[in-house]
Amino acid sequence: MDGVERAVRRISSNDRFARMAGVEIIEVRPGYAKVTMKVEDKHLNSVDITHGGAIFTAADTAFALASNAHGTVALALNMSINFLKATGAGSTLTAAAVEDNLTNRTGLYRITVNDETGDLVSVAEGLVYRKKDKI
Amino acid sequence: MDGVERAVRRISSNDRFARMAGVEIIEVRPGYAKVTMKVEDKHLNSVDITHGGAIFTAADTAFALASNAHGTVALALNMSINFLKATGAGSTLTAAAVEDNLTNRTGLYRITVNDETGDLVSVAEGLVYRKKDKI
Amino acid sequence: MDGVERAVRRISSNDRFARMAGVEIIEVRPGYAKVTMKVEDKHLNSVDITHGGAIFTAADTAFALASNAHGTVALALNMSINFLKATGAGSTLTAAAVEDNLTNRTGLYRITVNDETGDLVSVAEGLVYRKKDKI
Amino acid sequence: MDGVERAVRRISSNDRFARMAGVEIIEVRPGYAKVTMKVEDKHLNSVDITHGGAIFTAADTAFALASNAHGTVALALNMSINFLKATGAGSTLTAAAVEDNLTNRTGLYRITVNDETGDLVSVAEGLVYRKKDKI
Repeated sequence: MDGVERAVRRISSNDRFARMAGVEIIEVRPGYAKVTMKVEDKHLNSVDITHGGAIFTAADTAFALASNAHGTVALALNMSINFLKATGAGSTLTAAAVEDNLTNRTGLYRITVNDETGDLVSVAEGLVYRKKDKI
Repeated sequence: MDGVERAVRRISSNDRFARMAGVEIIEVRPGYAKVTMKVEDKHLNSVDITHGGAIFTAADTAFALASNAHGTVALALNMSINFLKATGAGSTLTAAAVEDNLTNRTGLYRITVNDETGDLVSVAEGLVYRKKDKI
Repeated sequence: MDGVERAVRRISSNDRFARMAGVEIIEVRPGYAKVTMKVEDKHLNSVDITHGGAIFTAADTAFALASNAHGTVALALNMSINFLKATGAGSTLTAAAVEDNLTNRTGLYRITVNDETGDLVSVAEGLVYRKKDKI
Repeated sequence: MDGVERAVRRISSNDRFARMAGVEIIEVRPGYAKVTMKVEDKHLNSVDITHGGAIFTAADTAFALASNAHGTVALALNMSINFLKATGAGSTLTAAAVEDNLTNRTGLYRITVNDETGDLVSVAEGLVYRKKDKI
């Protein structure tokens, strides 16, 4: 089983917070991942738009898949996220993580979140520390 | 009902994602808020530590309370978050948002997340755009 | 004189810090700008690589040109910058700012900095507040 | 010569960009540093306020001193900076870096920049990767 398979298996079977948020894995390659999340009532904040925590969770799951798909454990050091468009129940968000840079010790990813109309909902940049341990 | 009361009432009654994540409001003043979240199995990620999305959700709720407690609607523009310590089921996280700066149009907040031993779990900096509308 | 011309004229004639750093304007359109900076001894830090402040200055100048080229004054609210590759004296850095999002009040830009070999030196994300005043 | 002395000696004698920007070292301890910069005409941008690159350079120098004062080389991975107040020629800026967190491999610092009236001009958060090499 290669790194992609191990990362997908681990996250799909064991990531309880992503599961609770309804994040679904669409595509994973080393350094790349795409997930979706259908926005339901449970994802909304007090002003009836998708909660920043829900958007972050989708983005973070794509980020984790892309960075762990190299086959070794990658731990998030930080993430900077911008919120651009409000969405609500009924929207489908797609989060894609693309690798900007990879070294032995770190990986940097740009994560974009779009809604079902193609509009940009959020852009984020996340940095991981790469351990030697296999995922 | 003043801004603090309106912000607390609105978020405690209507923020469905924060409720699903188990975030509880402890203290709110204009420009300041503190919340807690007991880490349970549902908050964990694939490597059995608290999911970044769960930590973000707690931090974001403190941020929203502190910035909306001035009585007008504050919308998150961006947040930069650093992850410092892994925690797991059984931990209790406390997120506190403190105002660094406030203008007519923007507000900047530092959010710290500590665990029950007092250790720093996460630090974040969040910027809001302030609308004229009452919360 | 349109917004692009006004922004270019203003920055090329009056931005003293960018001039001291040797930043040269290559191309400007509304929402886009490219600049270069030849790395000399004066740009180096204590370990003989290009100073983060020099890289930031080049990135920030592209960011200012792209955001002000719409014709109204845009002020930086924040910037998040990642440093990926060390460069030294003799390198030529190119910083390009691309617009991710534009609203009446804010603009978000991704700024990439590459060296003369095409390698990525830095990636940044910057947010401006847009005033009504003409540049 | 201990880590503080080595870091101060190295940066004060060899950081050419910080010198060009007029950054002066005031105080350094392991994990802490304070510098000042008198704003002159050369630090201004096209709208006659202190250039973001100049503010960043002061903040970055405090950040480098604080993180290298442990005695081993610390390289900046990223920095997120917020701009809060415009200043101009005649102001004196003070940048102080305080350690939020330190591990064998990384260090996180909060850097605040204040003007001579005590007002907050900028807040930043910077992350370093710590090498084993002595500074």
